[in-house]
Amino acid sequence: MPVVTFKPNGILVNVPNNSSLLNAAKLAGISVETPCGGNGVCGRCLVKIEAGKVDFFNNGILSDEMLNEGLVLICKTKVLDEPVSVQIIAHLETERGKFSVMAEDMMLISKALLPSNSQIEPIVKKLFLKVPAPNMGDGLADLDRLRKAVLVPINAQDIEIAFSLLKNLPEVLREANGEVTINYFEKGNIVSIVDIEANDKTQEQYGVAIDIGTTTIAVLLVSLPKGDIIASKTSYNAQIECGLDVISRINYASKPQRLEELRTKVLETINGIIGELSADNGIDMLSIYNASIAGNTTMVHLLLGIVPQYIRLEPYTPAVFKVPLFTANEVGLDICPNTCVFIAPSVGSYVGADITSGILCTSLATNSSEVCLFIDIGTNGELVLGNDDFLLGCACSAGPAFEGGGIENGMRASLGAIERVEIDKETGEATFSTIGNVPPIGICGSGMISLIAGLFSTGRIDAGGKLNRAKPCTAIDANAKNAKYIIASAELCKNNKAIYITEADIDNLIRAKAAIFSACRVLLHNVNMDFSDLSRLYIAGGFGRYLDIEKSKTIGLIPDLSAEKFIFIGNSSIIGAYMTLLSKTHREKQQELAQKITYIDLSTEAGYMDQYTAALFLPHTDFNLFKNIHKETN
Amino acid sequence: MPVVTFKPNGILVNVPNNSSLLNAAKLAGISVETPCGGNGVCGRCLVKIEAGKVDFFNNGILSDEMLNEGLVLICKTKVLDEPVSVQIIAHLETERGKFSVMAEDMMLISKALLPSNSQIEPIVKKLFLKVPAPNMGDGLADLDRLRKAVLVPINAQDIEIAFSLLKNLPEVLREANGEVTINYFEKGNIVSIVDIEANDKTQEQYGVAIDIGTTTIAVLLVSLPKGDIIASKTSYNAQIECGLDVISRINYASKPQRLEELRTKVLETINGIIGELSADNGIDMLSIYNASIAGNTTMVHLLLGIVPQYIRLEPYTPAVFKVPLFTANEVGLDICPNTCVFIAPSVGSYVGADITSGILCTSLATNSSEVCLFIDIGTNGELVLGNDDFLLGCACSAGPAFEGGGIENGMRASLGAIERVEIDKETGEATFSTIGNVPPIGICGSGMISLIAGLFSTGRIDAGGKLNRAKPCTAIDANAKNAKYIIASAELCKNNKAIYITEADIDNLIRAKAAIFSACRVLLHNVNMDFSDLSRLYIAGGFGRYLDIEKSKTIGLIPDLSAEKFIFIGNSSIIGAYMTLLSKTHREKQQELAQKITYIDLSTEAGYMDQYTAALFLPHTDFNLFKNIHKETN
Repeated sequence: MPVVTFKPNGILVNVPNNSSLLNAAKLAGISVETPCGGNGVCGRCLVKIEAGKVDFFNNGILSDEMLNEGLVLICKTKVLDEPVSVQIIAHLETERGKFSVMAEDMMLISKALLPSNSQIEPIVKKLFLKVPAPNMGDGLADLDRLRKAVLVPINAQDIEIAFSLLKNLPEVLREANGEVTINYFEKGNIVSIVDIEANDKTQEQYGVAIDIGTTTIAVLLVSLPKGDIIASKTSYNAQIECGLDVISRINYASKPQRLEELRTKVLETINGIIGELSADNGIDMLSIYNASIAGNTTMVHLLLGIVPQYIRLEPYTPAVFKVPLFTANEVGLDICPNTCVFIAPSVGSYVGADITSGILCTSLATNSSEVCLFIDIGTNGELVLGNDDFLLGCACSAGPAFEGGGIENGMRASLGAIERVEIDKETGEATFSTIGNVPPIGICGSGMISLIAGLFSTGRIDAGGKLNRAKPCTAIDANAKNAKYIIASAELCKNNKAIYITEADIDNLIRAKAAIFSACRVLLHNVNMDFSDLSRLYIAGGFGRYLDIEKSKTIGLIPDLSAEKFIFIGNSSIIGAYMTLLSKTHREKQQELAQKITYIDLSTEAGYMDQYTAALFLPHTDFNLFKNIHKETN
Repeated sequence: MPVVTFKPNGILVNVPNNSSLLNAAKLAGISVETPCGGNGVCGRCLVKIEAGKVDFFNNGILSDEMLNEGLVLICKTKVLDEPVSVQIIAHLETERGKFSVMAEDMMLISKALLPSNSQIEPIVKKLFLKVPAPNMGDGLADLDRLRKAVLVPINAQDIEIAFSLLKNLPEVLREANGEVTINYFEKGNIVSIVDIEANDKTQEQYGVAIDIGTTTIAVLLVSLPKGDIIASKTSYNAQIECGLDVISRINYASKPQRLEELRTKVLETINGIIGELSADNGIDMLSIYNASIAGNTTMVHLLLGIVPQYIRLEPYTPAVFKVPLFTANEVGLDICPNTCVFIAPSVGSYVGADITSGILCTSLATNSSEVCLFIDIGTNGELVLGNDDFLLGCACSAGPAFEGGGIENGMRASLGAIERVEIDKETGEATFSTIGNVPPIGICGSGMISLIAGLFSTGRIDAGGKLNRAKPCTAIDANAKNAKYIIASAELCKNNKAIYITEADIDNLIRAKAAIFSACRVLLHNVNMDFSDLSRLYIAGGFGRYLDIEKSKTIGLIPDLSAEKFIFIGNSSIIGAYMTLLSKTHREKQQELAQKITYIDLSTEAGYMDQYTAALFLPHTDFNLFKNIHKETN
């Protein structure tokens, strides 16, 4: 009967050999979240084994580095015949799931969509060469011998070489006795050499997949020969200081020095992450030869320092959709300076490279005739509808409500955020849970959906989002200037200030959900379809990851389809960037899809305002759209 | 009878109307050099008209700017019916002919070899476009509309655009209402755009031809639509501080920071000249879109910052012969940063881009079956022998003697250099003339050839170069440690120090001429030919320009062929660079010739040392080689 000690509280439990650590935790009274059902894929039960051996079954979600640090998932760990000391950690101290979100997302994506080993073909490839020694009288300079050696295995017309490489070519070739690995890409029928390394380095090949979100930047460090994810990291986009959303960033960029400031800031964040990932894994940043970038149209413009103003000025024409291959040095990435950077194509001012990357994670990439809808829910909602026959894309401005913005006690989904609320049918009072099970600090998007769904289905708010003043309820304070509903009283809260939601907050959330729902309808109406025609509805985005389907339907955010039609694909943008980092097939498929998407500008689309106005009710003015979900409540 | 005043001395003369200014000058006792026979092509009689009108016939050698400054050539000027004030200037204060050397050289080249108007096709071309305004719903970003507009007149697969241009593309297109001139070059089937200017700028197109000599750098500023030379300038290569010849530069470059120093220095010189030429002519340096560079192999390596060591280490393999197109920014030229720079191909360690440019000025570029020999005489002598059937190239180390180096009283061909010497048959004393007719400072290469030829043909030195002590002569001082011949006594000289030549100096010159002559013979022997097989012998190089054929034959520097077979082509390297700046035909021809040249390495060539040793006599151990020239002396 080994002893298991749970830190930091120091709770001791005795359990039989081969007990699951999950049971031990329950025995210790520790609340362990297992949203994945204990299958070891969501990573939310991460702990650190500080002493003692355990039996942990890793299904690939934890990196070797994490394992070496003693990290395991409670749900997949068994206690052996020795004392164990377990530290409860990580994701509860930091933003939810930060450490593993991307690995977790990878699990959400159908394996069939990911590049197979035989599809792995990054843009910048490696080739080991034996360049003959210089020989008097053969009339060949160093560059000529290199050219000759390259054009034997590669069928091309000529080579080109980065300027800085030529400077040391004589030394590089002679010091390595001509045994060198070239890093190159094909530019039409020209082999363009971006770096030359001594000896055979073909197995040491690294790349980064980068998702530049308006708020968060995510990077995967990948070993390219097989596509293994070595490590991943996210960080806030340092541009946040200059404005929370794309419009305020575009406004901020109106002066050239500020545009440059934004460019510098996003590069600081990206290079900072790449630097940490490289250092943590003992990889030289300069030996990273591939980078694949996704991000919305504005983020791509700002990364490249391109004047972004015309994205938001009529007729809403960005400078570029398909960004040519520029060098890392030009772009400003601190990887091999002469290598080239792949940036996914955009299709409209607000349907960007994040979306063309995201749809690679859906059946839209599979030439299927089944119609499906992809929705990336965030400050902007971006939608793509279609099948192998047609593709329509649009974007709507949901506002920051889902991310806690513009909500009095709103916050992002991080430690202390109320993420789930239940309303007592009788008293109308709330019970709630917070991320990390700590005293609440505020309420995040999923908490608000849960709250409003509960208030609506218990009759505490009406279809217009107004609090029901007629039905007595201690939680409702209708006397304040702005009527409010108290979720958590002051004594329960971390800052000793009550957490509440006002009618104005509710209105904000209704506007947000109306924007998305009406955009869906407009796209469908464009092809004379209805929700019932959809085979699948993919929900992407960090926020979408924690969406409660039933409650989202209750408020009319998502359509009233059966649960199995909804597929959560998390941060599909970074997964798409991972796919295009690895595979030429996927890059070509992405380009094909991007060219196929017809971009609908909702601001000029007849009918959008009517649809939007009709959706400004809970769940909708047309109640028939949600008859399944609401039949028992009314 | 107008009065002509000659400044700075203030000499006044009265001449009839329509008198030639040359006669007026003679009347005033002013010595005017007219080596071109008064045909207005050598530029050595340049003066400035400070007051009064004259009738000057310009045959193209003077630029409009020069004419506007009042510059004329004495030999082509007539005095009209009004007083004239003439300032004697320029070339007498500076290095000989500096201002006009290149225009003069251009006159030496057969018109048939220069690009015709229909052949003008620089690498970077201009195209005026009307890019349609942005239009909602056409799915085209700014770059897409630009691409579409470009691919109508140009049949290509795609466009590419310099990174920095994309940044401001939205503004550039909108501010010019889409009426823009692109500057582009073709890269396979890709149109590569290096700059975009507002409005139609197709007639404002400038280029620079650059010759990087080890000692002197020459630049021509050219208006490209018609190939007009706007201005030219030369300057010493600032690398001189780091070593006088290529070998000492290569040695200097053995440390990376010194290689960078050499690169910076040559760029300072080049950019300085381009800056002056541009400023003088009101042209923005950034609107120069073409640059064509010639220079020896080492100069090209140093310009690009390429490790040059292996040029002089066995097996004498340079890093590059055919330099790819790099951007001006990469190379470091202060012209349009994204434009590309053409560098002529080299064929060997010591047969460089200056030679492949130079031979464009010869019948070697005309597919002629006539065998000819090209010799560029300088510190290194470079030779190319051939016809449409074969081409052989080699280089020999002549040493700096022809440029005054390693000679006790030697100097370059500049103001105060003794350039011609006659030896009195009876007394053995010298009469001489100096550049600028000023008191002598030293003796230059042509002066030494003239001197040694004179001393030899009057029997004052023997075939071994030793002074004849047996024949009394006041000019010969055989008592000194190193026997010497006094050319000018101290009281005649500017610095009150006698100018003389020592036996060691004579030996140096003999070695120099032997190196060149024996290289010629080895090349000919390689194809079983003799001098008699030559139809033409081209002599290139700044030194070659002032070579006296008969005296050069007398000492055995050049073969004993009839005078009409010798063609002086001056700085053929810069003229070649001018041709390749203008014309694709000439660039292709140059590349074809470069690939055809078989490079002979004399250091490993059997027989070269024997030939060299045999040539260490005046004129040669094999007297039969010079029987025509020497029949009367002996």
